[in-house]
Amino acid sequence: MSDLELNDPNYSALCEHVRETGYLESTAALLEWDQQTKMPALASDYRSEQITHVAGLIHQRKIDPRVGEWLEHLTDSPLAADPTSDSGATIRILKREYEKRIKLPATLVMELARAASVGQTQWVEARRENDFKGLAPQLKKIFELKKSEAEAIGYAEVPYDALLDEYEPGARTSEVAGILEALRQELVPLVAQIKGSSYRAPVDILNRNFPIDQQRLLGRTASEAIGFDYRKGRLDVTHHPFCTEMGPKDCRITTRYDETFFSGSLFGTLHEAGHGIYEQGLRSEYYSLPPGKYCSLGIHESQSRLWENLVGRRLSFWQYFYPQAQGLFQEALGDVSLGEFYRAINHVEPSLIRVEADEATYNLHIIIRFELEQAIINGELDTDDLPDAWNEKYMRYLGIQAPDDANGVLQDVHWSAGLVGYFPTYSLGNLYASQIFDAANAQLGDLDTMFQAGDFVPLKNWLNEKVHHVGQCLSGPQLGVQVTGIELSHEALMCHLREKLIPIYGL
Amino acid sequence: MSDLELNDPNYSALCEHVRETGYLESTAALLEWDQQTKMPALASDYRSEQITHVAGLIHQRKIDPRVGEWLEHLTDSPLAADPTSDSGATIRILKREYEKRIKLPATLVMELARAASVGQTQWVEARRENDFKGLAPQLKKIFELKKSEAEAIGYAEVPYDALLDEYEPGARTSEVAGILEALRQELVPLVAQIKGSSYRAPVDILNRNFPIDQQRLLGRTASEAIGFDYRKGRLDVTHHPFCTEMGPKDCRITTRYDETFFSGSLFGTLHEAGHGIYEQGLRSEYYSLPPGKYCSLGIHESQSRLWENLVGRRLSFWQYFYPQAQGLFQEALGDVSLGEFYRAINHVEPSLIRVEADEATYNLHIIIRFELEQAIINGELDTDDLPDAWNEKYMRYLGIQAPDDANGVLQDVHWSAGLVGYFPTYSLGNLYASQIFDAANAQLGDLDTMFQAGDFVPLKNWLNEKVHHVGQCLSGPQLGVQVTGIELSHEALMCHLREKLIPIYGL
Repeated sequence: MSDLELNDPNYSALCEHVRETGYLESTAALLEWDQQTKMPALASDYRSEQITHVAGLIHQRKIDPRVGEWLEHLTDSPLAADPTSDSGATIRILKREYEKRIKLPATLVMELARAASVGQTQWVEARRENDFKGLAPQLKKIFELKKSEAEAIGYAEVPYDALLDEYEPGARTSEVAGILEALRQELVPLVAQIKGSSYRAPVDILNRNFPIDQQRLLGRTASEAIGFDYRKGRLDVTHHPFCTEMGPKDCRITTRYDETFFSGSLFGTLHEAGHGIYEQGLRSEYYSLPPGKYCSLGIHESQSRLWENLVGRRLSFWQYFYPQAQGLFQEALGDVSLGEFYRAINHVEPSLIRVEADEATYNLHIIIRFELEQAIINGELDTDDLPDAWNEKYMRYLGIQAPDDANGVLQDVHWSAGLVGYFPTYSLGNLYASQIFDAANAQLGDLDTMFQAGDFVPLKNWLNEKVHHVGQCLSGPQLGVQVTGIELSHEALMCHLREKLIPIYGL
Repeated sequence: MSDLELNDPNYSALCEHVRETGYLESTAALLEWDQQTKMPALASDYRSEQITHVAGLIHQRKIDPRVGEWLEHLTDSPLAADPTSDSGATIRILKREYEKRIKLPATLVMELARAASVGQTQWVEARRENDFKGLAPQLKKIFELKKSEAEAIGYAEVPYDALLDEYEPGARTSEVAGILEALRQELVPLVAQIKGSSYRAPVDILNRNFPIDQQRLLGRTASEAIGFDYRKGRLDVTHHPFCTEMGPKDCRITTRYDETFFSGSLFGTLHEAGHGIYEQGLRSEYYSLPPGKYCSLGIHESQSRLWENLVGRRLSFWQYFYPQAQGLFQEALGDVSLGEFYRAINHVEPSLIRVEADEATYNLHIIIRFELEQAIINGELDTDDLPDAWNEKYMRYLGIQAPDDANGVLQDVHWSAGLVGYFPTYSLGNLYASQIFDAANAQLGDLDTMFQAGDFVPLKNWLNEKVHHVGQCLSGPQLGVQVTGIELSHEALMCHLREKLIPIYGL
């Protein structure tokens, strides 16, 4: 801390309070990580009690009236003068979060937590039984509570703004909708063109036998090469891959292995490692304070997508790694050329399941969810009508029809878990990733030459400096403009997709 | 809870408070387990902060004045009338702990937690580098803090009483010293007789090649057979094996594997599984309350030693398991008879490392540590002089000399982790184990016939009922008398050792 910061007792007390809350938040992260990765089968009931108790302690600390008092004293402090300085951002963000949190009635917070908990349990059952009707009442309840939440928080234009703001601070629904609509208008025809093309990528090679031990080795080697530091992290196996952190030097990623599918684990590992590199790149001296926290979910996702797609699905990446992959998977890849492999991992085809979708169609899955959740929150769609609306949009945007709700509207847990306004951040991540990659390429010179030599350090260091070190000192859009020089739009992503896909599909 | 318990608001509030503290204590256990087993290398500094913070919260809850008020109200309640009933023990033990704890300054508690966390990290380094001097300042600090702790708590005869009482409630240093002195007087000549005997057990067979995967399999099979329930537990690898629990159905044990040594992992796993069976056998409805907590460390250790030594090193155990072991380790054990194997695993010989010591000499290792830590706490020895004092006692009791401190005074983590007064409970465990096993054998009929058939359930169930379900309703000595009918002494253990060793060594 600077002398100015140290000498302001309100600022010191506020930061100390937040750092201590961070001990509990990171401890809660360990409870949850362990629940997903290591915990014995019968231990889950008590674990829920532990997590609930710690969450309660965290909430109490966050609504501590002293936080309001410290912030009140700091409003006119020179420390708050520049809202993008470390101290200014600290005061600005903590004030925003405190005010938002005290606006929410405790009963609503508890009802939401309970509804989300019940919702997740019911969702597992509903998806397994293909029973949307069984989930519908709970889903209606959750969306009603989210509407109440939006009203309690307040919004500029539409209620959905309030929910989006939770994950993408400062973003407006109208702006995001405009960008995603422009993306959709160009993406739908491109996907249709590819569907109509006569070229078929040799995707079956990815379903040959890929022994898990070798997959583990390649995933570890590649994630380490791009910059995930295993002295400050680890990689475990879970059914649903994720990235979490429980300390400034303790970031943990997970993956799952399928012996008969190459892409799932490798690209999943690169994706989670991208999230992890961001977490590891945050300024550790500000751990749990705004300057040391990730900017927004969209920016977080941009870091995972950048390494997964912009780097990991790039020809130059495989010019370096393909010989290693062939060495590890002699039987599966021995007779496959680099070109065939490259085209297979970049295959585009409309499909039903979001998490298995390719780089291009993925965004159409998101746009559908974004449109549907907006319609519900803004009162234009009833949750009971979700399956029909879902199927209609899948036919219109992707030209496919789910055989049942389990593979349709029931495929994602998000809404059942109370996560509304979360989906668009996935596509914002893709859009930011393309723009940020282009900026890096322009500033660092020819990245492909570096990748061909297995050198990912310059890109990682550039991201550390330009993106990660910013923390929450800038908002997502501000960070985007500072790093790339332009406002967020669909263009860089479309340009990137066209450059890659037009040659592959001979369009 | 009974109606009486439910209708007493002070009792309900007290129990609820303690259960909630339990959420934090079990969370702290996870932070520590993860630190030993899974945590990335560079994460230890922040982990220490997390543990310190949670320890502070736990301490705050334990000295909450309301606890004192609830206990005050309950002193004359009918719930407290029988001090060995569930409610009576709850009130009695919580009162004892509360009174002890309010004597401890918060700063001392936090300093001790931090010193122990740092101490453990430094110990790893010091042991690896054979650098006692590197650890010495931290060790001195820890012992000074423990002296302060003893003074703050108060004691009847000597300061060491206060520390011993933490692990073996109600035990007096003078009494324990008397029993261990009697043990030493009979043990030293027995060990000398064995050393002088012309028979040499074929111990080299245990240093053949034992592939780790097979060791893992045998350890898992045997620990499961004796009753460790893996639906409520797990087994991991650590350098220093331990057992911990982080919930009523979440008990975790660890082991370490050495490909060229059979006994280390297998008997270590049986040992930790014995601890785990005790934890899993506690009444889960009383989790984190005295009736659902282990009685004392001595009783805890009796359960691990009973399964490790009284059962695991017994001929009848191997009459069942040896064919399996031979099948797993064809190359190593194919030409070894059961008799040779049995004599090898029961070989007695003075050696340097406590955790690798045999059943007989083990207690001499403990007696040395017990004498040394008493001397430090009672002001008769300086920590800097530990290596010399250590080596002098090893020569006197065991007739051997460590080549360096790594194999001498640095071999155990306990003191570096702030565990002073803990060591004697290991030998108390051996003493209790022999008495308890004799009682089980007398009450259940011929245990050997059951073991020969691989049936360990009757013994496990008997221990559940007689020992585990008691929790802290009785003290260690009370439990011992109730289960075995006699006071604790060195006799059952000596009898057991003589019965086994005299035939083997032809004394």
